[in-house]
Parts: sequence; C-alpha cells; structure tokens
Amino acid sequence: MKNISLRKILYAPGTSYAMQAHDGISAKIAEQAGFSVLWASGFAIATALGHRDCNEISWTNVVEQVGYIADATRAPILVDGDTGFGNFNNVRELVKKLCKAGASGVCLEDKIFPKTNSFLSYNQQLAPIEEFVGKIRAARDARENEEFCIVARTEALIAGFSMEEALKRAYSYKDAGADALLIHSKKMDPSEIITFCKHWDYSIPLIIVPTKYAPESAALYAELKISLVIWANQLIRASIFAMQEVAASLYRDQSPHKINEKIASMEDVFTLVDEAELKNAEKKYCPYVNSSS
Amino acid sequence: MKNISLRKILYAPGTSYAMQAHDGISAKIAEQAGFSVLWASGFAIATALGHRDCNEISWTNVVEQVGYIADATRAPILVDGDTGFGNFNNVRELVKKLCKAGASGVCLEDKIFPKTNSFLSYNQQLAPIEEFVGKIRAARDARENEEFCIVARTEALIAGFSMEEALKRAYSYKDAGADALLIHSKKMDPSEIITFCKHWDYSIPLIIVPTKYAPESAALYAELKISLVIWANQLIRASIFAMQEVAASLYRDQSPHKINEKIASMEDVFTLVDEAELKNAEKKYCPYVNSSS
Amino acid sequence: MKNISLRKILYAPGTSYAMQAHDGISAKIAEQAGFSVLWASGFAIATALGHRDCNEISWTNVVEQVGYIADATRAPILVDGDTGFGNFNNVRELVKKLCKAGASGVCLEDKIFPKTNSFLSYNQQLAPIEEFVGKIRAARDARENEEFCIVARTEALIAGFSMEEALKRAYSYKDAGADALLIHSKKMDPSEIITFCKHWDYSIPLIIVPTKYAPESAALYAELKISLVIWANQLIRASIFAMQEVAASLYRDQSPHKINEKIASMEDVFTLVDEAELKNAEKKYCPYVNSSS
Amino acid sequence: MKNISLRKILYAPGTSYAMQAHDGISAKIAEQAGFSVLWASGFAIATALGHRDCNEISWTNVVEQVGYIADATRAPILVDGDTGFGNFNNVRELVKKLCKAGASGVCLEDKIFPKTNSFLSYNQQLAPIEEFVGKIRAARDARENEEFCIVARTEALIAGFSMEEALKRAYSYKDAGADALLIHSKKMDPSEIITFCKHWDYSIPLIIVPTKYAPESAALYAELKISLVIWANQLIRASIFAMQEVAASLYRDQSPHKINEKIASMEDVFTLVDEAELKNAEKKYCPYVNSSS
Repeated sequence: MKNISLRKILYAPGTSYAMQAHDGISAKIAEQAGFSVLWASGFAIATALGHRDCNEISWTNVVEQVGYIADATRAPILVDGDTGFGNFNNVRELVKKLCKAGASGVCLEDKIFPKTNSFLSYNQQLAPIEEFVGKIRAARDARENEEFCIVARTEALIAGFSMEEALKRAYSYKDAGADALLIHSKKMDPSEIITFCKHWDYSIPLIIVPTKYAPESAALYAELKISLVIWANQLIRASIFAMQEVAASLYRDQSPHKINEKIASMEDVFTLVDEAELKNAEKKYCPYVNSSS
Repeated sequence: MKNISLRKILYAPGTSYAMQAHDGISAKIAEQAGFSVLWASGFAIATALGHRDCNEISWTNVVEQVGYIADATRAPILVDGDTGFGNFNNVRELVKKLCKAGASGVCLEDKIFPKTNSFLSYNQQLAPIEEFVGKIRAARDARENEEFCIVARTEALIAGFSMEEALKRAYSYKDAGADALLIHSKKMDPSEIITFCKHWDYSIPLIIVPTKYAPESAALYAELKISLVIWANQLIRASIFAMQEVAASLYRDQSPHKINEKIASMEDVFTLVDEAELKNAEKKYCPYVNSSS
Repeated sequence: MKNISLRKILYAPGTSYAMQAHDGISAKIAEQAGFSVLWASGFAIATALGHRDCNEISWTNVVEQVGYIADATRAPILVDGDTGFGNFNNVRELVKKLCKAGASGVCLEDKIFPKTNSFLSYNQQLAPIEEFVGKIRAARDARENEEFCIVARTEALIAGFSMEEALKRAYSYKDAGADALLIHSKKMDPSEIITFCKHWDYSIPLIIVPTKYAPESAALYAELKISLVIWANQLIRASIFAMQEVAASLYRDQSPHKINEKIASMEDVFTLVDEAELKNAEKKYCPYVNSSS
Repeated sequence: MKNISLRKILYAPGTSYAMQAHDGISAKIAEQAGFSVLWASGFAIATALGHRDCNEISWTNVVEQVGYIADATRAPILVDGDTGFGNFNNVRELVKKLCKAGASGVCLEDKIFPKTNSFLSYNQQLAPIEEFVGKIRAARDARENEEFCIVARTEALIAGFSMEEALKRAYSYKDAGADALLIHSKKMDPSEIITFCKHWDYSIPLIIVPTKYAPESAALYAELKISLVIWANQLIRASIFAMQEVAASLYRDQSPHKINEKIASMEDVFTLVDEAELKNAEKKYCPYVNSSS
C-alpha cells in the first residue's frame, strides 16, 4: 500500500521533489531521507546492472528492479519507461506489468526504440507525433487503476528541434490524455525550461529533470510552477564515486582501516533492512523456538 | 571468458584478495580497482535488493544477480551460495545454474536453510556433518567443468561450537572433496583464525573473511598462509553510506550544489559502462547511419 | 480484475470444480472450458518446465508461471504453494509476491522443505504442528487484501499417519485461521475422505484432490459437502500424452499428414490468444498505419 | 554438454528434422522421440505463455524458456530469435545470453521489431538489407564460441516481395557470414521453395519450415537438398488440441473416467522427469537417510 498517491502529489500546489532509485536499498535510503516520490531511472537501473542506457537490458529486467523498489518502500514510484520498448502493444504490456509490480506511474518519451541516453550527442531520433500519441492512449487504456499516471516526456529539445516543435508535441500529448508533461533539456542553464514555461498553459502538471542545469535554486522552480523536480541519477552516481574510492583504498592498503568511517556499519545495514522486524516476527510465529541459541 | 582461473589463484603461493560485488557496476569497479577475484556476497546482494540476509530472495534471484556480475566483468567470481538453499538436490541445481551464469566457484556453508546472517546472534544452527558432506559431494558431481571450485565454509565458531568441532568439520569437508576451506569467525580479533591455522594441514587452500577482525595487517594473513582474503561487504556498505549522505543533502538543500564533488560525473559513468564501444560498434555494424544526427 | 472471488466460490453452497493450469495457454483453455477456479499446480508447473516435483525450481520461478496464468485469464487462481519454500518468513514473501502476481489464494501443506510429490512413496515427513500453525498465521498477516485465501493442506494420511492425526492437524490449522482445509489421500478409493468428513465440522470449507480415487461420481462429493474438487494434473498429462503421439508420428513418417486432425489449427491458436484484439487495437491506436500491407 | 553439434548436423549430407519445443517437457518429448535438433519456436513459446507472437513477451522471457529447454535435454537447440528484438546491439545481447543458456544457434529474420507472425496477413514489413546484414555480422562477433550458428531467415516471400528480392537477400546474408539460410513461404504448396532452390548455390545449408505446405514427402526435401526441415509448431498445437478435449470432458462429466486413456499416467510423468535418478542420488549423497519412510 502506498503512503500517498502520485496523482495527488502531481496535482498539489507547490513543487515536489523525486529522488532516483535503482534497487531496493537506494529506494529505502531515498524514502528515509524524506522524499515523497521515487524515480525508477532507466539510466540508473541499467548502470547498476552494468549496462548502458540503450535498452540493452530487457523491459522485464527493468520491471523486476521496479518490483524490488516497490517491495522495499511505501512511497509512490514513477517509472522511467523510456520509449515503451517498442510499439503501442509493448507499451500496454509494460503498463500492465508495472501496475502489478506496484508502480504509481510511467514516464514515456517520444524517441525511437532502442533509445540513446539524452546526454549523449547522437541517435536522438524522435518518433512521429501520431505514433507517440497512440502510445499514450494505449497506456491510459491498459492501466489497471485510474490512479496510475501516464507522464509524457518530449525529447524535442534534446533532439535539436525548435521550441515550437517541443510545444506542439507537449500539447498533442496533453490532448491524448497524458496526466503530466516532462520537458527535458540538456542545456547547462534553465533557459529552455523558462521559455517553455512561458508558453505552457499548465492544464496538466509539469515535470523537469535538472541534471545539466542542476545548481539552480528551488525558488526558480517554484516560480515556474514546476510540479515535480526529479533528481534523476544522483544516488547511483554517489554510489559509484564511493565504491571507487573504497575499492582503491582496500586494494592499495590490503586493510580496511582507512575506509571504516566511509562505510556504513553492519548495524546500520541491519537497521535499514529492518532485522528487528524479523526477530519480532519469529517470536510471534515461532514462539516455541528458543531464538537466543 | 575469464581472464584467469579461480582455481589457479587459490592454489598459487601467497595471499590473494577478493572484493565483494552485488551487481554489475560494483563488479566493474572492483575489477578496475585491480582485484583478481570477485565475491558475489549473499548479504550484499540481498541488501542491494532491499532484503535481509536470510534467504528472503530466491536462489534464482541470486543467480540472476550473479549473471549481471559475470556479464559485466572478466574476473573469476566466487559465489556465496549460503547453505545451498535446501538439500543436496537444491545444491546440484544451484551449481548447474551458476556454471551457466559464468561463475567460477561456489561457497557452501554448514548451516540450516533458511540461514541467518553470521553477525546476528541468533538462529546459528549447524547442519549434521554427514548432511553437509553429501552436499559437497553433490556439488562436485554437478559442476559442468572441473575448473569450477567448491568451497566449504564452516560456521562452527560462529555457532558457538569448539575449535575441535570446527577442525573436525573442516577436515571432513576436505575429505569430501572441497577445493578450499573457508573458516569464519566473528571475534573482534583474529585469535580464532590463528588457532585454527595452527591445526590446519593446508592440504587445500584456506579462505578467510575479515569483517569484524578486519583492521589486521596483510603480513599476518601471509604468515598464516591464507590463500584468499575476502572483503565481503565493503562496497555495498560504502554505497549505502554515500547514498545516505547525498540523499540527505539533496533533500535538505533542494539543490545538488553541495554534492557535486561527491558523485561521479555522467562522463565517468559513460566510461565505466563503455559507451565508446557502443559508438564504435555502431560505426562497424551500421556504417550507413549518420550517427551525428 | 477477477470475474469472481475465490472466497465466494469456497463459501458458496454446493461443490465447485477447479482445473489445473501450468502456463498461460493451459489456463486459457481451462477457463474457456467453463471452470470457475484455476489450480496452479506445483507438480504441473515443475513438469512443464522439465523438472521434478521436489522444489528443484525456485519459488520465484513458480511465481513467474503464476504471473503468466494470471495475465492470461480472469478466473481466480488458487496456487499450490507446497510447504511455503522454507520457514514462516519465506511463506510471507511467497504470499506477498502471489498477491502481486494476481493470485486469489495459496495452498500450504504441512510437509518439510524441500517436498516430495505425494504420490511417491518416500520422504513424506511432516512438519511439527506448531511450526505449520505459525506459517498459516504468517501467511494471513502477509496477504495484501483479505479476499486472498489461505488454504491449509494436511498430508497426514499421505505420510502414513492416523485419521486422528489428520483431524487433529485439520482442526489446529482451522484454529490458526486457515480459510479452507484440503485433505489429501492417495488411496485408490475415497474411503479416507469419507471417514474424514464424518468427523469434520465444516466450520471452514473442505477441498479434495481426487487423483488416485478419481473415477468417483460428483454425487458423492456433493453428499460429502466438498466445497472444491481439484482436477490437479489432467491438463499437463493430456498435453504430454498428445505430444508423445505427435512427436512419434512426425519422427516416423517425416510428414504431418497423419497428425493434422490431432493438432489445433493455426487459426484456432490465433483465436485462443485473441489476435483479433491486437488487430483492432492497431486500428484504434495507429489509425495512420495501412495495416493491410 | 550437447550430444551432437548443430553445425555438424547442418553441414552433414542429407536432410535432418528439427522438432519444436516450447518448454522443458516438450523438449524432453521431442528428444526422446528421436529428433536430433530442437527448434525453440518464438510462436510456440509465446503461445504457451498465453501471449501472441508479436514480441509481447520480452526477449529475456524467451531466453528463460530456452534455459528450461536446454536444462532438460542434450540435443542441440536452434532458437527462433525473431528480428533480434531491436537493433544490432540487442542482437549482441541476445546472442550472448543464448550462448550462456545453452543454445546452439539462433535464427534471425529480416522483419521489423516488433514482429507479426508470418501467417497473419498484415504488418510484414522488411528491414533494409544493410541493416539486417549488420545484425548478422554483430551476431557472429558476439557469440561465445564458433560452434554457435547464426541462421539468417528471409521473410521476403512472406512479405509479398519477388523471388529476386528473396534471392538477393539470401545471398547478401550468406555474404555477411550467416551459417545457414532459412527460406520461408506461406504458400499451400512448395512451389516457392522449389523455385528458390533452383537459384540457390548451396554454399551454406538451407533450412525450411513446412507449416502451410506441410504434407509434402521427405523425398522432395531430400531432392531439394534441404539440410534441415523444421516442424515449427506441432507440439504446442497437439498440446492445445488435447487439453481442450480433456478440459471439455472433465467439465461436462465432472469425472475423469472418459479421459483416462487420453492422459499420461502419473508413472509416465515420473519417468519422463527421471524420478529414479533423484532416488538414486539420495542414496548416494544421503546414505544416512532411511528413505523408505
């Protein structure tokens, strides 16, 4: 059971923040830090599994990771569904499986399968508008409950198209029934987002992903009436940086004495995964066992 | 194809070091740091997936993670097989699947399924020796190739039994055909390991896991003629510590400006997963595509 | 969404019949034949995958097959959960995953993991009553919704124990909160079932599996006030028999001319998996495509 | 370990026959009937799982079924890889996983992802030749061992193109390094195959799939110097036909007395999955257990 509805968060006044998760433990950490929404990032999930962000892993591999995230937390999960992994029918299968896995919404982007990561400078081909509109409509009809949100993400600016094209696509996707619109930009400053907002009618909530133009103030996002800001990859990147440091130190020193203050204690880990609950459950369901042995 | 054989490393003179991995990216990091062996830790894999180390996730869930580790690296992988997830027949299925997944060996421990983590103070029940001996023999017969190593791990000292019991079990497992012996201790100092070594005949290689008694010198392990020292959980613990810091900072500041030096850059991530290879492959296999578009 | 509740079927007056399914297509066939309940048989699922009925495949392998069954049908699914694949905590994980997969109930049996098929004459060891009672209570608390049914199956008669032991266990499981009771017998006649019924108070519904004593009349089951009769393995057995015939004929004749009346036409298969829906959906979501090409 | 090499069978003189398998048990049945090659049919696998043959299930779902087939048998397995499930990079991932799963070859077809079954009359769009040639080359380079065969399948005749186009594609795929060529036809007679053979130079082996034009004699295929004839779907179709009959009978009669001669006995099933091996293994690895209990 989710502790709050993604739809309510998206349609509430003010700006909410979503934190990226790529597995069960990153999801627990994001939730315990206070974030009310989790972003099951395709990039981060692929990276964690050792793969590139170009649909090398199958869509059911992604759904399986979403399952771990959902089982580990109660916060609503918006899943990065990339292009939907094929045509409208693949989108329908994806949505059905995500509903079952416990996700609260899916974000679909208007590129071509297999996709290329938005921050790489090649292969950013867009799908025809009418094709992507069909996917949004198919996604809506396939969801198991109406709380499940369909977020349309236009990569028009990523792919080098004009603001007019981005707006045309955004309004087309809204008309097709998208519950929210994600406008993506890879500029180092938020100028594109600001311009887009000037021409947006806010009939459905707006979502942004400040990766390149990240060090902007929350004040700006509030002013732009952004509903949801997604920190899309910071946990996997934090994890990589820390693991590289610790691996290097252990390899060099053949001893962990220099890394002990940089790693969680075993007790911290046991707390995170709630070993106490298991011990209590054992008392409850196996009262005959002397578990102190 | 592995770049070196686990068997050769175990039987070589001198002490080697294995680094824990729980997914594809931690495996890549461990390998690139220089470690010649990867330890696919049951504890770390369960933790990453948001679960406790008590066989909550299925054995095929574990094998799937081992598959990601194997696909991401060329270093040999010793898999933490816990108790073998049932009886001798479950052990056989596990070994067959691990061979297919690309693992180089499995470590089986002489506790009861479902297991409890060795650093928790309860439910550390041992299996009868004859039962565990049957598992080792079954594992040997089930492996697809003779390079695959069967490591026997005795939890006698963890479970509070005497050094005599630990040695009796160790020699029984060696006689049953184990390729190496892992002696585990949860003492804060290596005294138990030192005593064990005094009575060990080194007919098969010795492996240790210095988690609690970790800040010992490599000199000691060399003196004790330990073949393999396993850093069994440091990467997942580093990852947790760093993700907690970054999540807290992002939640508090609603901006990433304080965390930028604590996270890997997008470019670093692209390098880790070898985006360059993909771009070159595209040129090779799709020369007709103008990939700059 | 299920077309009817398993709980309602179990608690309705009269005898219902459940048909075994082991994959998506067998489930569709059972549903289209008119059966209101599907039995996701552990034996049949293992057999279909080429395995023995002794927990060789993992519990998540089973859940995955249940997912295919649930996705293919709307009839409620009672899942054969064997012993729960471990202790009370494994039972909890199983129940959580089955709820997500779309099952309507799980049947747990009071043997020891890993189990042996009930029609084999060895290794039919029972779990202590108090341990199994803990599993039933854990299963109840772990279910996501109260419609999900926990069925307790006693193997006391299978394991060679007395009718008194069977009844003692049955009443203990009822007291622990089981929603229904499955009494199993491997006799060639229903005498054990008849005797059991004489001493049963019908406070919770009774389920039987007439495999060995199968050719009994429905009148008897109605008289015995059986709530649910499970045909537990007939579809996989029908499938095996037919495939053996057709494979032999094709191998011998190097031509399919003798088997054509024994195999479904391609058109029949297309109808079973509802190709028409896909064609209509394509018109709906891709009106711009000239699909006649 | 395979009992014979697919490559050897393809390059041997004379015509061999492959039988379709969709899961472990159908594979065992095909092998025991005498077939030396198994065809892991995409159509049959999707059908068994309750899905349509249009890539509704993910490519890893298919690989998982191939794993069950490989674990259940020793005959070489040629896997129906459809279009490769995306671009050249998806093909590489597929090939790597199939090698690990124990397959002996993959057949790739020159249509567009997601595919439509060849016997449906719409959406039979072909990929550009140069794109498909890139996939064949990528598949070759990705295989783990040189015994693994890359079979190119042209759907030119299925898609309504001319014999010239079919031949042009066939020779292009051969030049790209395909190990064998599959020429497909949906005509009710083998006239297209006969014409194709007249213009084929037999530099690589030829494979056919007589589904529509099936009742032809083996003599013709030998005369045409076909290396491999694939019975591509008869086991799943036999299985469906039989299950429909048995389900109808059980539903109507509420008794199995009319179906007993149409279903395999429990003992037959136990033999198929080799319960005897398990009992012997128990004696070997658990001599201390009195398994007669």
